[in-house]
Amino acid sequence: MISSADLVSREACMAHDAADPIWTLRHRFVIPDGVIYLDGNSLGPMPRAAASILGRTIEQEWGQDLIRSWNSAGWFDLPLRLGDRLGALIGAAPGQTVVCDTTSINLYKAVHAAMGLRPDRDVVIAEAASFPTDLYIIEGAMKSAGRPMQRRLLGADGASLEALLDARVAVVVLSQVDYRSGALLDIAAMTAQVHKAGALVVWDLCHSAGVIELAFDRDAIDFAVGCTYKYLNGGPGSPAFISVAAAHQAAATHPLSGWWGHADPFAFDRDFRPDAGIKRFLCGTPPIISLRGVDVALDTLQGVDVATLRAKSLALTELFMARVTALLPDLAIVTPRQPSLRGSQVAIAFDHGYAVVQAMIERGVIGDFREPNIMRFGFAPLYLRFAEVWDAAEILAACVRAEVWRESRYSQRLAVT
Amino acid sequence: MISSADLVSREACMAHDAADPIWTLRHRFVIPDGVIYLDGNSLGPMPRAAASILGRTIEQEWGQDLIRSWNSAGWFDLPLRLGDRLGALIGAAPGQTVVCDTTSINLYKAVHAAMGLRPDRDVVIAEAASFPTDLYIIEGAMKSAGRPMQRRLLGADGASLEALLDARVAVVVLSQVDYRSGALLDIAAMTAQVHKAGALVVWDLCHSAGVIELAFDRDAIDFAVGCTYKYLNGGPGSPAFISVAAAHQAAATHPLSGWWGHADPFAFDRDFRPDAGIKRFLCGTPPIISLRGVDVALDTLQGVDVATLRAKSLALTELFMARVTALLPDLAIVTPRQPSLRGSQVAIAFDHGYAVVQAMIERGVIGDFREPNIMRFGFAPLYLRFAEVWDAAEILAACVRAEVWRESRYSQRLAVT
Repeated sequence: MISSADLVSREACMAHDAADPIWTLRHRFVIPDGVIYLDGNSLGPMPRAAASILGRTIEQEWGQDLIRSWNSAGWFDLPLRLGDRLGALIGAAPGQTVVCDTTSINLYKAVHAAMGLRPDRDVVIAEAASFPTDLYIIEGAMKSAGRPMQRRLLGADGASLEALLDARVAVVVLSQVDYRSGALLDIAAMTAQVHKAGALVVWDLCHSAGVIELAFDRDAIDFAVGCTYKYLNGGPGSPAFISVAAAHQAAATHPLSGWWGHADPFAFDRDFRPDAGIKRFLCGTPPIISLRGVDVALDTLQGVDVATLRAKSLALTELFMARVTALLPDLAIVTPRQPSLRGSQVAIAFDHGYAVVQAMIERGVIGDFREPNIMRFGFAPLYLRFAEVWDAAEILAACVRAEVWRESRYSQRLAVT
Repeated sequence: MISSADLVSREACMAHDAADPIWTLRHRFVIPDGVIYLDGNSLGPMPRAAASILGRTIEQEWGQDLIRSWNSAGWFDLPLRLGDRLGALIGAAPGQTVVCDTTSINLYKAVHAAMGLRPDRDVVIAEAASFPTDLYIIEGAMKSAGRPMQRRLLGADGASLEALLDARVAVVVLSQVDYRSGALLDIAAMTAQVHKAGALVVWDLCHSAGVIELAFDRDAIDFAVGCTYKYLNGGPGSPAFISVAAAHQAAATHPLSGWWGHADPFAFDRDFRPDAGIKRFLCGTPPIISLRGVDVALDTLQGVDVATLRAKSLALTELFMARVTALLPDLAIVTPRQPSLRGSQVAIAFDHGYAVVQAMIERGVIGDFREPNIMRFGFAPLYLRFAEVWDAAEILAACVRAEVWRESRYSQRLAVT
């Protein structure tokens, strides 16, 4: 793996880019001129093929072929076909993944199914620092479980997983990558730990699918959910995924029992009879145009090995941290330096972070800010260049040295996801 | 209103089309050459502006403006802004409607909220003949209510609403238009009847929004849900809507408590605190490109009075029934002849219906088939012409007279929604 010690100049970065075996993948995306895009962990950029393929879905499949496209254009099969394609990226054999609904909705299904598989247990473990919607959805799922459930918060007051796990725990919900700090959890070890306690695990892979090697089957993951619009580049709000281990499917139920999850949706039976397999995790009619965005996005990963992406991602984040440290030694990088402990982003805690991020955006470097003081930069190996990372660190340093937070125009806060 | 008695020839129909005050609305849509589209009650056709507006959402907003579009292109506000636009079509004042998720998911929220508003009651009334996903979702919502609930089936063994309503009934779920027969319920009268029993009503408006005059506020409807891809022409699987009466909102809760429903989603609080208003019925990040299709679709209704659409719709269905009866007097039309009792479709029960519908599609007339024996034809007043209705009846008669069901190529059944 390349070390930041080799990348001692912008020229060295450019030379390294030129030798990058996946350099050409960038051409599969549209990156606007003058933009260094470090926000692919929030909304991935548009694949170059998106305009024509989505245009075809709109103008030909919808406009000309109309209702017939449910069959002729394969709309019916999209959630499953895309699920299998996405499953391959996370190490899940076919028949265990569907693309549908939102991460929130899919998490609700997964937590319900997991609670149902452990009917004699009454505790759900959630992470205190997880992305809040996970906490909110777990709250909603627990309320609608049909029996009193209790929540234990991992990380609150220092509580460890070991300390929280006991025979009352039905399910543990974990995010592989902390959305703020970028810290990475050890899926294999923690899944084994949860299983040892007789509980089931739901992994939120929003910040890891498509950029970190995953082994859903080998690690015996029970459930996984995640979005497709970050490192997978499916488009704004593109439908999410849910993976359910084959061994659980026949007994895994959830209350979002819409007709797409029925064993025979067009029999129009009066009572719900879930599909025998992963289709039981579908619910209503999916948003086809947005769903097609996931198809296009998965095309950009064809012939690409996730291990190669991960190696480049680690080199990108290492370079950024090394440059930031060299330029601004006092800045507090909160992302772990050890490669095995970090995802594909770098988080820096800085009191004036909001203003700095705004000033950087004005200078073409798009990152984002998370309350209360985190500047967050995502490094997507599919399209980023080492020279861009070099430049981004320079621009960050220039903004900090210029004390941009003294300029009033950077004070108005806008929300971004 | 025009009567079918005036439309005694194809020429009379053409003359009537030429005088139709909303004739030009057809130009807002793409109707493929040679197609008479009687399936707008399943998937509405593409508005002519869709390709360019969705293309702009894809190429400019996503491709060029990236994450900034959440603010600059108004992505954040789309569910509410579209909700208010759609609300106007169904007689709901602003702040009571959002566009999000699927009809199934929104029905789940509505039934949950309604059950929660009647905590001392334990019965849900559903229609035996409703679109099955409604029954399946009610089943799921009841299971996750947190208390034992019972279902009563309206129309099963002839059970009337009057007979089923009592002080145990918390909520009644009704579809305004029967998806098979096209029969139309009296929203004002039935809502009043439900309220008289102290229960709440959830109206499924999938087959009426955009084509039938509705008075959400005046009729004191509690909850309404519906899709946007039928008569509203939002595109395949475009997000659905949910309307909640302002008076209920503060106390109406549901367990799909995702971050988009939070009072302050970017505060990243640890506990869920629902928005004070209709936003609490949002859940996760919406599929923006498909959602933009609803925006385009609502544009096609600008300056159009739903009363005008309803009058033309009734004239279209009356003409079709009159012509079918004249040409094929033995055919069993199951849609009510009385205007106040029918929606915007005509259903014909016929044992060889599947083959006839396939043969008609081959001849350019697209309708659909519903088990066990219903040929279903939707009449969307926005773009259909009276001359097309004349022709469609002729082609139906030709297929029946030719006994097309004797041809083997019409036997393979494909599913359509």
